[in-house]
Amino acid sequence: MNEFGLIQKIRKAAFLNHSEVLTGIGDDCAVVKSPRMNHVLLLTVDQVVEGVHFLAGTHFSKVGRKALARSISDIAAMGGIPKYALLSLGLPKGISPKSVDQFYLGFLELAHPYSVDLIGGDISKSLKGFFASVTVIGEAPQKEVILRKGAREGDFLFVTGRLGGSLLNHHLTFRPRINEARWLAHAHIPSAMIDISDGLMGDLGHILDESKVGAYLYLNQIPISKSALQISKGDSHKALKKALWDGEDYELLFASPLKDKKWVEKFKTKFKVDLSCIGEIVRGAPKICVKDEKGKTKELSKKGFSHF
Amino acid sequence: MNEFGLIQKIRKAAFLNHSEVLTGIGDDCAVVKSPRMNHVLLLTVDQVVEGVHFLAGTHFSKVGRKALARSISDIAAMGGIPKYALLSLGLPKGISPKSVDQFYLGFLELAHPYSVDLIGGDISKSLKGFFASVTVIGEAPQKEVILRKGAREGDFLFVTGRLGGSLLNHHLTFRPRINEARWLAHAHIPSAMIDISDGLMGDLGHILDESKVGAYLYLNQIPISKSALQISKGDSHKALKKALWDGEDYELLFASPLKDKKWVEKFKTKFKVDLSCIGEIVRGAPKICVKDEKGKTKELSKKGFSHF
Repeated sequence: MNEFGLIQKIRKAAFLNHSEVLTGIGDDCAVVKSPRMNHVLLLTVDQVVEGVHFLAGTHFSKVGRKALARSISDIAAMGGIPKYALLSLGLPKGISPKSVDQFYLGFLELAHPYSVDLIGGDISKSLKGFFASVTVIGEAPQKEVILRKGAREGDFLFVTGRLGGSLLNHHLTFRPRINEARWLAHAHIPSAMIDISDGLMGDLGHILDESKVGAYLYLNQIPISKSALQISKGDSHKALKKALWDGEDYELLFASPLKDKKWVEKFKTKFKVDLSCIGEIVRGAPKICVKDEKGKTKELSKKGFSHF
Repeated sequence: MNEFGLIQKIRKAAFLNHSEVLTGIGDDCAVVKSPRMNHVLLLTVDQVVEGVHFLAGTHFSKVGRKALARSISDIAAMGGIPKYALLSLGLPKGISPKSVDQFYLGFLELAHPYSVDLIGGDISKSLKGFFASVTVIGEAPQKEVILRKGAREGDFLFVTGRLGGSLLNHHLTFRPRINEARWLAHAHIPSAMIDISDGLMGDLGHILDESKVGAYLYLNQIPISKSALQISKGDSHKALKKALWDGEDYELLFASPLKDKKWVEKFKTKFKVDLSCIGEIVRGAPKICVKDEKGKTKELSKKGFSHF
């Protein structure tokens, strides 16, 4: 496989949406005009590594799709719009040109509906297995950016969609919640937001760490996905455990101080997406608490969960 | 090794120079204020992969340095200033925490003098060997950006420094030519520019392809490095071959239409760096020609070179 031939192929396939991209693939750097006044840039990078983020044998178009979707989801978590992408590839010896084509075509197929322009990249050999690193640059009005650190005591906790069992399929097919997040951010609803990649408990932990607060979870309000139930063969306790700790749901988790929840119905009607109020922010250490079956508040841990 | 512990360590070590970075490491994305009016963003990504860009056993501080230096060199090649970096890491099983520390400290040690802020990243396992992908975002006045495609018939070709034998040491220790390139760009001297990573012949080829012109090289003016001579054991023909085809010199190669070359002396005095006029741009196909020992013009190819 010829590196420069491959670059030319990708260059031809990568349609540019944004007129502010002055130079895309094919120079030492991409050149992009300054973004709009009162806007900020959002910059993120994520990887997909064979054996870690996908198994050997996965169709490469799904791998390409996921590679981009992960980074777009990070832009969503900040309330932004994705605009440009850079793609670096590690290609193992003997990978078929067809697999590489499938990868970047799957990548570009997701780039298109999100108007993401692929504007640069790098190609290298890999010692073993395929890997890709995707940088996405997005934009948001400065006053609408949502960080992890804004959660305050009394805020409610919300999550979109249903959680758990992503490994069955969802981790390859999820739709990054850009429109949903933009709507929330524009309406100034969330005080802190994250996308769930490390699992609900892990990512809630990140919000709590950054906001220096604790959380109280309504365990019976956690939205459990069909996949989580399917894997758990109907055992609802097991399924709840999956919803709490499985990774790669790429749903939005956010805190909001709004007591009036009319916007929740508006959101559900507009996007036809589940939205669940799953807890509240409390004062104190970044711990996650729940009520046990006796009504006693105790800290939730993976180990202790089996006693519930 | 704990991923989040490592992120916190890097976050603490990554000093931020630029006040327009509103949020650095520790959220879903970095947040950066819009760049200045009449400026453009320059975006690039490069990788270092064990066994490809460095050999197992190389001190990781040198690998970290090189990882960043490669991307900074791309910003130089456009006439820009590097500003922010994103770092994604692939860590093989059993890599020592000390090696990882050495890597990012080597990275940050180079980031400091270039005022590059590390503002985000991603960490993953690797199936085999260490790899890293470095995105750098830079800035330049829009009117001073230099592309590969601007070379015109009659332009002279220049190269900084001395070429060849980089593998001996230079590929790990080179200093990206940011100051030199900014000076050239600000003075509007180059019509096209590139940094030499694929070798003089390869990268000149990129300029010719993009500019749709040919080149005539002054073979006796090619600046040969001490390393190239050392590896060639004083065989000047062999050393010249290395200067032409070896990669990873990271010197600047550019075309300029200026007939008056007073600026060449100014450049040399200011930067104490060699600057050689090595040829000229000619009309026609993107071929590289030289005069052979009989004074006959012929195309230069790696295979044909031994006959000279």
